Amino acid sequence: MLDKIRIVLVNTTHPGNIGAAARAMKNMGLSELCLVEPKLFPHPDAIARSSRADDILETALVVESLEEAVADCQLVVGTSARGRQIPWPIVNPRELSAQVSERLSKTPDDFKVAILFGREDRGLTNEELHACHLHVHIPTNPDFSSLNVGAAVQVIAYELRMALQESVVDEAPQWGVDWDIELADQKEIELMFNHLEQTLIDIKFLEPDNPRQLMTRLRRLLLRTVPDKVEVNIIRGILTKINRSISND
Amino acid sequence: MLDKIRIVLVNTTHPGNIGAAARAMKNMGLSELCLVEPKLFPHPDAIARSSRADDILETALVVESLEEAVADCQLVVGTSARGRQIPWPIVNPRELSAQVSERLSKTPDDFKVAILFGREDRGLTNEELHACHLHVHIPTNPDFSSLNVGAAVQVIAYELRMALQESVVDEAPQWGVDWDIELADQKEIELMFNHLEQTLIDIKFLEPDNPRQLMTRLRRLLLRTVPDKVEVNIIRGILTKINRSISND
Repeated sequence: MLDKIRIVLVNTTHPGNIGAAARAMKNMGLSELCLVEPKLFPHPDAIARSSRADDILETALVVESLEEAVADCQLVVGTSARGRQIPWPIVNPRELSAQVSERLSKTPDDFKVAILFGREDRGLTNEELHACHLHVHIPTNPDFSSLNVGAAVQVIAYELRMALQESVVDEAPQWGVDWDIELADQKEIELMFNHLEQTLIDIKFLEPDNPRQLMTRLRRLLLRTVPDKVEVNIIRGILTKINRSISND
Repeated sequence: MLDKIRIVLVNTTHPGNIGAAARAMKNMGLSELCLVEPKLFPHPDAIARSSRADDILETALVVESLEEAVADCQLVVGTSARGRQIPWPIVNPRELSAQVSERLSKTPDDFKVAILFGREDRGLTNEELHACHLHVHIPTNPDFSSLNVGAAVQVIAYELRMALQESVVDEAPQWGVDWDIELADQKEIELMFNHLEQTLIDIKFLEPDNPRQLMTRLRRLLLRTVPDKVEVNIIRGILTKINRSISND
């Protein structure tokens, strides 16, 4: 799905930013880069900042006009600051990604989207913005709203990945990798709490006549970890060692 | 709300990346930057890449250890690639932002979160990751997963802004319960772990020459509870009682 998306950089001044955009694209699984009249390209700064995403730079299409860059696309989206003179449909990157995702789910074969990023100093011109179906605005601090081009590509590519790879994200394990150990069952956990309570009485931390909320608080603390079998065994092992340390006196 | 968030860059090599991170922060309305042993700072490359976010560079705190950087924080989050050997609670940037937002809506005054970003070439060490309550992973192309530090700050700062400034929080996942007690800060938690480790050595459960993964597992168990001050005090109290029970023999 991500191969249906073309990133178009218009009149970029600093080749380093082209490299940063290429890296951000590749990180997020995008691959199609189009450069409209870049000031300096190819350039060593672009390669350096791309950090091994140079395959994206090598296959980038360099064209002379925006028309050429978007001719075969069904949806053209311009990145924009808010407050242009003529109101235009505007979305944030999340809404854009949802729209692209929905469109792709319906007509995957006949759909290509271009997302345009303007010049470092003044973005896209009004004429370029008016060539777009809709505009995308990245929410920013109103007092400091100008994003680096590479950073803007990063945010939008991230949202596209989140939307289009959602199934992958959803299936992702909650613990970085699959939890390596079976969870403790409730019987083991209650035995652990019995052992803990008796040990706390033995070391005179818990007074049976005045237990207050101690066991309740410890239950809440340990239960909310949803402990696995090894963790329960570690706690039982610690308690057993405490028992022995005391009885050895 | 965004002023409750500290961005911590650990051992950054290239000052340009510090500048890019500062710019990304300011674009998204974050202002608190902490640098743990940066290789080169201050540096003209940092100022150049910050693009007028130099106020963030000027007020950045430079410290010598990660401990110092997070001592007053109640939630410490490490950016991480997937697939660490020991599973740890892991969320994506959107889930992280929802958690932070929910927590801030409940205890705005007593809450500070630190988000750690590692070295350009190898990220955070396992030890640094094990100092964290949870990890955040930015979904990436598995074949090209290493984000630029500035780009990673950009994505996470963007998600935080989306969550905290635009109330996109309806899908906030559960975060424990509504605590009646102030959360422990990281300094208290580390003192607790020091006490625990020494006590485990004293009762001969932990062999200093062969520690295996015991402390790591206990850290993971207790850190994922995000303990409050009373809970930490209970554990310290139990440890003190054990110490006395042993020395009274």
